[in-house]
Amino acid sequence: MLAVHLENGCVSIRNMPLPRRGKGSALIRLRCAGICNTDLELLRGYYGFRGTPGHEFVGQVVEADSTKLVGRRVVGEINIACGRCEWCAQGLEKHCPARSVLGIARHPGAFSEYFTLPEKNLHLVPDSMTDEQAVFTEPLAAALKILDQVKIPKGAPVAVLGDGKLGLLIAQALYAAGAQVKLYGHHRNKLQIAARAGVAVEWPRKRVPRAIYDWVVEATGSAGGLNEAIQMTRPRGTVVVKSTIHEAVQLEASAVVVNEITLVGSRCGRFAPALRLLRSGKIRVEEMIASRFPLAEAPQAFAVAGSKGTLKVLLQCDF
Amino acid sequence: MLAVHLENGCVSIRNMPLPRRGKGSALIRLRCAGICNTDLELLRGYYGFRGTPGHEFVGQVVEADSTKLVGRRVVGEINIACGRCEWCAQGLEKHCPARSVLGIARHPGAFSEYFTLPEKNLHLVPDSMTDEQAVFTEPLAAALKILDQVKIPKGAPVAVLGDGKLGLLIAQALYAAGAQVKLYGHHRNKLQIAARAGVAVEWPRKRVPRAIYDWVVEATGSAGGLNEAIQMTRPRGTVVVKSTIHEAVQLEASAVVVNEITLVGSRCGRFAPALRLLRSGKIRVEEMIASRFPLAEAPQAFAVAGSKGTLKVLLQCDF
Repeated sequence: MLAVHLENGCVSIRNMPLPRRGKGSALIRLRCAGICNTDLELLRGYYGFRGTPGHEFVGQVVEADSTKLVGRRVVGEINIACGRCEWCAQGLEKHCPARSVLGIARHPGAFSEYFTLPEKNLHLVPDSMTDEQAVFTEPLAAALKILDQVKIPKGAPVAVLGDGKLGLLIAQALYAAGAQVKLYGHHRNKLQIAARAGVAVEWPRKRVPRAIYDWVVEATGSAGGLNEAIQMTRPRGTVVVKSTIHEAVQLEASAVVVNEITLVGSRCGRFAPALRLLRSGKIRVEEMIASRFPLAEAPQAFAVAGSKGTLKVLLQCDF
Repeated sequence: MLAVHLENGCVSIRNMPLPRRGKGSALIRLRCAGICNTDLELLRGYYGFRGTPGHEFVGQVVEADSTKLVGRRVVGEINIACGRCEWCAQGLEKHCPARSVLGIARHPGAFSEYFTLPEKNLHLVPDSMTDEQAVFTEPLAAALKILDQVKIPKGAPVAVLGDGKLGLLIAQALYAAGAQVKLYGHHRNKLQIAARAGVAVEWPRKRVPRAIYDWVVEATGSAGGLNEAIQMTRPRGTVVVKSTIHEAVQLEASAVVVNEITLVGSRCGRFAPALRLLRSGKIRVEEMIASRFPLAEAPQAFAVAGSKGTLKVLLQCDF
């Protein structure tokens, strides 16, 4: 089978043996996968990664213990927890210290014709949903995680900083949840996607306003975004931190203390609400697709995904 | 009257005219004041400060509109709010954007024979309390602010990082509130004060433990403390940030996001609970006093307060 391989900053396609599923695991054939900023970071060597990446996917179950899964289209949660530690016992499998993570840590990823994942990680994709909608389940779940962590009052003004893939999903998801969202970004074409979903945007972007929001979401993906987000936040306000920056960020800590700001780190979320929200049609995901490549053209796909300003690049397998 | 003056990194004593109190303000004669790290930072030029510092004090009211204040010993909240803005309307005077701050911003401080403060900022000191206890009201209120911001379950393990003046007060205050506190610091003599109050301490301090606390308070006063605090925190845990560092802090932001840690900036607190706790005798403040100087010897007092490892230095006025 074909599988994407990252090593020393290079993307290659390799011929690999079919993976063997363990007990409770499903063998999945890839239908569609999305390249995420994390994949681009793995390519740059973060986490010392070498191997097959890919964690945003829609696949078809080929083999599984559970016969009702076989043949079905699925998406899958990416954290593979031990199931035995205190974190798992508390339902916090996403923080299991012994976890592996699909395509990120100690588990080969979905940019591969076949891959495995525990059956309990899988969610059926409704027939009414296309692959190109369902492939956004994982990043939309990450966006929705914010609502599991902080209680944003209905109608509250919320600033989302960053109009990349994650920022667009967050802005639309919070808007769909009833917040009065304003998206701050630098790219007119990206802002327009959120605007068509009903989100207020500012164009051209000026200096960020100072201390006017009780709720700010930082999703710029850049090291400078956090201080900008803090500047925008009113005393006692909250900044949700979504960007995973793999370098030390220069934090204006005194502003956090003097204004008693709360920063909340936020990562992966639950798939069920993401699937429901995608099904509602309120999130304009199709417009976020920049281009599509066959899996065998992953090197080109990574090159396009890594060029500045590109939205979602998909890898597809023909059936 | 004598007043301390900070300018260009120098501490001097000046002869100044007696301040005039406005309507609703009290004229206060200093009895005892504490030198805080913020005062040392003002000396180094932070906030572009030039003038009379001092915000930890016990004084005696000389003149006031309210006759029941005159002649009484008082401590005073340091934020002087406008009383008219939306923050003041919400009872959040400490965040009033038009506020001045005693001895820190636009209001001459308490290191002066006489100074003024709004009467509504004042709290009577119980007769049973000495000046040297009551002068800790302001920093103890800042320590107790933590309990107004986060709900630490009774008996929960809490790490306090930093055995300086604020760290010692925080450790003792959280212990008195029922938390299972462990204080991490580098100074045996300081740790012993907390230990005598019942707080667990570690000596000699090794590398901080990784990811074992749900609650960590950062009070090191040093730029490296925040990342250490984050390292000690379990996924989904909370770091209360108390150190006001006037330089950019290198933050490992990815650890905050991946482990979904919450950082809570924390500043000034309410005086009433601090006075009650001081009165209870549970906080060993007298042992935290390193030395005492007459107000006229403020230059020497600042020199001692600024030498590494010194605890509280007091300035006193004879009556």
